[in-house]
Amino acid sequence: MCATEEEKAWVIATHSADFYARFAPGADDDRLLATALWVYWGFGFDDARCDSGPLSTRPAQFNELACRVQRACESETASGEDRYIGALQDILRRFRSLATPTQVTRFTHAHRAWLSGVAWQVGNQALGRMPGLDDFLTMRALAAGGYPTMAMLEIANGAEVPDRDLYRPAVRALTEMAVMVASLDNDQHSLRKELTRDQTDQNIYAVLMRERDLSLQQAVEAATGLRDRILLRFLHLHDRVRPTAGQELATYLQGLRYGIRGNNEWGQRVPRYLSLGHWPDAMEDAALTWAEEPSDTRPGPLEGAPGIAWWWDEDLA
Amino acid sequence: MCATEEEKAWVIATHSADFYARFAPGADDDRLLATALWVYWGFGFDDARCDSGPLSTRPAQFNELACRVQRACESETASGEDRYIGALQDILRRFRSLATPTQVTRFTHAHRAWLSGVAWQVGNQALGRMPGLDDFLTMRALAAGGYPTMAMLEIANGAEVPDRDLYRPAVRALTEMAVMVASLDNDQHSLRKELTRDQTDQNIYAVLMRERDLSLQQAVEAATGLRDRILLRFLHLHDRVRPTAGQELATYLQGLRYGIRGNNEWGQRVPRYLSLGHWPDAMEDAALTWAEEPSDTRPGPLEGAPGIAWWWDEDLA
Repeated sequence: MCATEEEKAWVIATHSADFYARFAPGADDDRLLATALWVYWGFGFDDARCDSGPLSTRPAQFNELACRVQRACESETASGEDRYIGALQDILRRFRSLATPTQVTRFTHAHRAWLSGVAWQVGNQALGRMPGLDDFLTMRALAAGGYPTMAMLEIANGAEVPDRDLYRPAVRALTEMAVMVASLDNDQHSLRKELTRDQTDQNIYAVLMRERDLSLQQAVEAATGLRDRILLRFLHLHDRVRPTAGQELATYLQGLRYGIRGNNEWGQRVPRYLSLGHWPDAMEDAALTWAEEPSDTRPGPLEGAPGIAWWWDEDLA
Repeated sequence: MCATEEEKAWVIATHSADFYARFAPGADDDRLLATALWVYWGFGFDDARCDSGPLSTRPAQFNELACRVQRACESETASGEDRYIGALQDILRRFRSLATPTQVTRFTHAHRAWLSGVAWQVGNQALGRMPGLDDFLTMRALAAGGYPTMAMLEIANGAEVPDRDLYRPAVRALTEMAVMVASLDNDQHSLRKELTRDQTDQNIYAVLMRERDLSLQQAVEAATGLRDRILLRFLHLHDRVRPTAGQELATYLQGLRYGIRGNNEWGQRVPRYLSLGHWPDAMEDAALTWAEEPSDTRPGPLEGAPGIAWWWDEDLA
């Protein structure tokens, strides 16, 4: 799927196997391979077709490509001219051989959600528009790819969560919160790289600087605070749901937890975010430092973000 | 949600209650009301924001609106400035009070699929691009709104299809085929109106005229032929799946059949497609004439449409 050795080097430098092994440490090799392949694919597609590349500011062309890519997930017989489409079909064939039709369908739904968020981001880029906080949180959680990544937990673990568990409001909220925390962490991981590229990229810092008239340092503090508040709510709700969860749901919830942690361990070491040169450096096993405590422990919904206020609903069950 | 009396008159003239009662003749009043309300909403949104209106050629702006609309389906606390968003949230509240979380989630997934197809259509319109047949079929089945319409069958009938049934390849193919036949029928229903508007709309006739160098009359014959071939395959596969279907799946499959027929009965009488004036005429209970037999009975996949070729896979189960 890669057009050049350089493109391939950057795809490999995503260390997607390292990444996804942290999400699903119990997965057997076949399942880990299949799911890690999609992560490699997703990063490659993202770099070549979404965040940068000629379509990154062309929403009309991106919408067409997104629908063709999505169709390739759903139809084994779809043909696609784009070089990323054939590779995706190979990966979906692996999924179908390993996973149930329900698991594959859930993945394809999450895949479409991801592409819809990227389409929004591409549209904003075309218009030179920086979204407000509420819109940004919706967009970023979709565009960061967290939904298909979390949907693969079931494929990697071979555990199918019953519908009535997966779509309970409390579990939907937990999925959304895990994806949001990981998405905001990715904004942090790529901050240094983005600053060097002199881009007007849509990230949580740029959004907060504009919406609240903050300096970068203030925006970093504000972003960390709201990320910590979401994580605290995730932990609180998780601890209420987990004790009565069945086996498959418990495995899934643990996967969300592994994912939040694993994404963060990976993102602080991966050349994708750390290498500033033309070619990626090797990945170093750098020691990581974690905050001793959350930077903001205020309960309740975040100010200025009504779209996610329901996560704090006391009646969530 | 309507800005003017004229807009409201055209929404009412969609006769969406008549439409959806044909899909779900056994639904009780509350369920029929809730699902019919979404159909009214969908037609209003389509006319004001998709097919025509200021966003119909602005993909960047449409992508943003589509994601906000979608978020309003998923988040009870989302706020939206667009006047269609509040109305949609009312309808979703009805759904949540009547239906299971699984049924509502399936509807929201189908809703996103619909909007993704509209986004593709808007992008093509912005570029002045007429898609080829294979792309068009994928786009049209999404953009015509058939997926959310069929996803509401479960809500209207109060029957939840088990995952393992709904996502079986054979049942996925039946859903896709029913949606496709209804979408192509809608192209026929709106042909007269579109011809009078002198638009370069993306419909099956324009696509076939361009791709196969046909006259309009020839394109009408070709489109009817391929529509009939899809319907024959639907009937054949349906008759293989139905005898061993459980109660909920059988109810769903019957809903697909009612939908194909009901859409056609409605579409040949509804002022939305028949009224050419400024204000809609009353709906007349005109007698309908049906073809005695299919115009094309050739088996096998359609030429030039690889994306749907898998529907004819002999091993579908």
